[in-house]
Amino acid sequence: MRSVKIGIIGLGTLGSGTLQILRGNGDILEDRLGAPIEIVRAADLDEQRLQSAGLDKSILTTSAEEVVRDPEVEIVVELIGGIEPARSLILEAFGQGKHVVTANKALLATHWSEIVGEAEEKGVTLGFEGSVAGGIPLVRTIKVGLVANRIRSVTGIINGTCNYILTRMHRERKQFYEILEEAKNKGYAEADPSMDVEGVDAAQKLAIMVNLCFNVPVSPNDLPHLGISRITPMDLEMAEEFGYCVKLLASADRVDDRVEAWVHPTLVPYGHPLSAVDGVFNAVYIQDDNLGPSLYYGRGAGSLPTGSAVVADIVSCGRDILSGAVGRVPVAGYRLGNQSDSTLTFAGDTVGEFYMRINAHDRPGVLSSISGILGLHGISISSVIQRGREDVEGEGVPLFMLTHEAAYSSIMTAIEEIDALDAVLNDSFLMRMISSGVVV
Amino acid sequence: MRSVKIGIIGLGTLGSGTLQILRGNGDILEDRLGAPIEIVRAADLDEQRLQSAGLDKSILTTSAEEVVRDPEVEIVVELIGGIEPARSLILEAFGQGKHVVTANKALLATHWSEIVGEAEEKGVTLGFEGSVAGGIPLVRTIKVGLVANRIRSVTGIINGTCNYILTRMHRERKQFYEILEEAKNKGYAEADPSMDVEGVDAAQKLAIMVNLCFNVPVSPNDLPHLGISRITPMDLEMAEEFGYCVKLLASADRVDDRVEAWVHPTLVPYGHPLSAVDGVFNAVYIQDDNLGPSLYYGRGAGSLPTGSAVVADIVSCGRDILSGAVGRVPVAGYRLGNQSDSTLTFAGDTVGEFYMRINAHDRPGVLSSISGILGLHGISISSVIQRGREDVEGEGVPLFMLTHEAAYSSIMTAIEEIDALDAVLNDSFLMRMISSGVVV
Repeated sequence: MRSVKIGIIGLGTLGSGTLQILRGNGDILEDRLGAPIEIVRAADLDEQRLQSAGLDKSILTTSAEEVVRDPEVEIVVELIGGIEPARSLILEAFGQGKHVVTANKALLATHWSEIVGEAEEKGVTLGFEGSVAGGIPLVRTIKVGLVANRIRSVTGIINGTCNYILTRMHRERKQFYEILEEAKNKGYAEADPSMDVEGVDAAQKLAIMVNLCFNVPVSPNDLPHLGISRITPMDLEMAEEFGYCVKLLASADRVDDRVEAWVHPTLVPYGHPLSAVDGVFNAVYIQDDNLGPSLYYGRGAGSLPTGSAVVADIVSCGRDILSGAVGRVPVAGYRLGNQSDSTLTFAGDTVGEFYMRINAHDRPGVLSSISGILGLHGISISSVIQRGREDVEGEGVPLFMLTHEAAYSSIMTAIEEIDALDAVLNDSFLMRMISSGVVV
Repeated sequence: MRSVKIGIIGLGTLGSGTLQILRGNGDILEDRLGAPIEIVRAADLDEQRLQSAGLDKSILTTSAEEVVRDPEVEIVVELIGGIEPARSLILEAFGQGKHVVTANKALLATHWSEIVGEAEEKGVTLGFEGSVAGGIPLVRTIKVGLVANRIRSVTGIINGTCNYILTRMHRERKQFYEILEEAKNKGYAEADPSMDVEGVDAAQKLAIMVNLCFNVPVSPNDLPHLGISRITPMDLEMAEEFGYCVKLLASADRVDDRVEAWVHPTLVPYGHPLSAVDGVFNAVYIQDDNLGPSLYYGRGAGSLPTGSAVVADIVSCGRDILSGAVGRVPVAGYRLGNQSDSTLTFAGDTVGEFYMRINAHDRPGVLSSISGILGLHGISISSVIQRGREDVEGEGVPLFMLTHEAAYSSIMTAIEEIDALDAVLNDSFLMRMISSGVVV
């Protein structure tokens, strides 16, 4: 029987998860694919890691190029991450007529058109299920499961580190930095957690989702993003009192022929399916014209969860190879040439409700000055709570407000003016809000 | 450009939803498929319905056989439901070398091996995404998205009528029959709702999921099922007090080489992702060896949601046809010949925790007699609440109990003995419980 021959580049965490699945589930994979998957080449810069991978010594190499150029290799599995050398290796693999499976979100987010375009041009397959939402089969759901539908919005909890921190801050009423340290110790946060907690990672995944769902070319740098480091336990408590939990959401909405997209801490009403997504879990909530709302929930990281997405891509690609059907589904799910005429609009245009925390000195007339400024910008207030410590140390007293619908740009201008008030400390904090999903 | 030619049988609710999507989203479908979908034949017994479908008169017929035998038709879309004549039509379509798309759960649940076997034997494709969980892309998630994983359990809220009734009973503290009447008026329940509320519909869908996930041949008649008609508002209140909501679950669990499956009212702890699934929505919670838990949520019925699954199947089948890749993925996701050696074990063997409502007269020694019987069967009690009306009318006072882990068969025997006690009315009611899903 013919086998499907793969070469793996990168035997780190994801590489070893992938190997573990290929070995442990070889029997079901062969049954479902109709052929065994054979690793014919494996590369890692780290000799130690190479030798201890349990692979036949003859297929090991420290040169990624050798994998890409090996004539036996049909599918190159790129698991090193980052832009370079991953980009060059993948392009060269395409040039050699090889298919590629990758979970490289940074590369796809920033070089989407180039990578997808080259795959299409060379007539090869590119699998990238693992690049968004880890093991959740989200990419194929968008490309295949929802193929009959026009997606209106996609809103996700797609950074497990942030969701873990927020869940624990809420449950234990602890500060951000306290939980972050514990998360680092548990391996749920990186030594340098800024990519996660500042929303950069979520913006990369959002860029891929915008490309996929809306056929709108966008780079993560185009997407406004704010992380979770300024959220306090008091914010979570107030949100709860208002009937909401706090999540870092990545969201893209199609409004007429514009797409508005952002990553932002957001109040999610209890009862919305995203409100039940706790801990390291990810979930993506999609709204489309036929199915309405749907949600996909699971682990967004980890060597076995993401490895299961990588192996699923290898099987899909193998099925294409064995049935002579490469190109059966366009790489992006749609023909790249038919670029949508949507133009991406930025968050300044977004209209929504907002949560504000303003630190003010407890002086007469403060609330009136603040609401005066809001009124000038056409922003009306739906709730105000003043709570917490007395203004003994001159540190101000926090004032929590929810607004009615307002433009993001108006809110930002108003906050600037509020922060310039004498009686207000210059550190107001803003969160977005989403409305309740589904009512019975 | 070549088109993909389909023939539709049945222009009822689902048929018209399918037509609406094919028309309204023709542009994106053509872009994503790479060819237009052309309806070349359409059949319905109802002349009126045929004529008002907005199709070219020349393709209309009241004879389903004409669709199946039309040499132009490449894909037969069977949307009439029920066992016959659907079964014969589908088998004849296979015999004519045609592919079939269907959402017929009753047929697939009861004739799985025959229908899937014939499709494989004739080398044609069978799409059945719409047969379970409506528009949620669950079938392809199991066959393709989770292809690298061994599924351990699948647990779903897969009957929207029951979930709608339970959600409203809980919110409004109303009786089952009261909400059922309102659900009928709103079109959320059929005139004869017994298939839904007694769990038969859920058992059919569960049979398909067991076949898909575990490769174990099973008929819905093999699956023990209990519906929701005996649940009272008081049960929902007590469950909430214990920290649970009540859902009609369909569940299948692999334990070693056995599969245990049932449909039963079940206490689901708050915090479990299934606890947030309210109203007519469906959700399926899967646990596998690599991804761990994952959940898929959306509308499980309705002409557009289920229509979107039907059209997605037409596109997938069209992609196979256009790329000459029919048979690329086995119909069931695995090769049918490699029958698993799992044998289905019935609920009698299941071990779990249980909720009991026992109606007893308020006499001394009653609780001691009941707990004595439970003790004899090795069942220990974790909580007891006695609540509600005084035993003035001789109707008994309800006693609510949660047990620790016990075998279902022991519980059933114990309840029989308890119901035989003089002081107990003969109508004890049992619900299953599932444990909390995921902890941070």
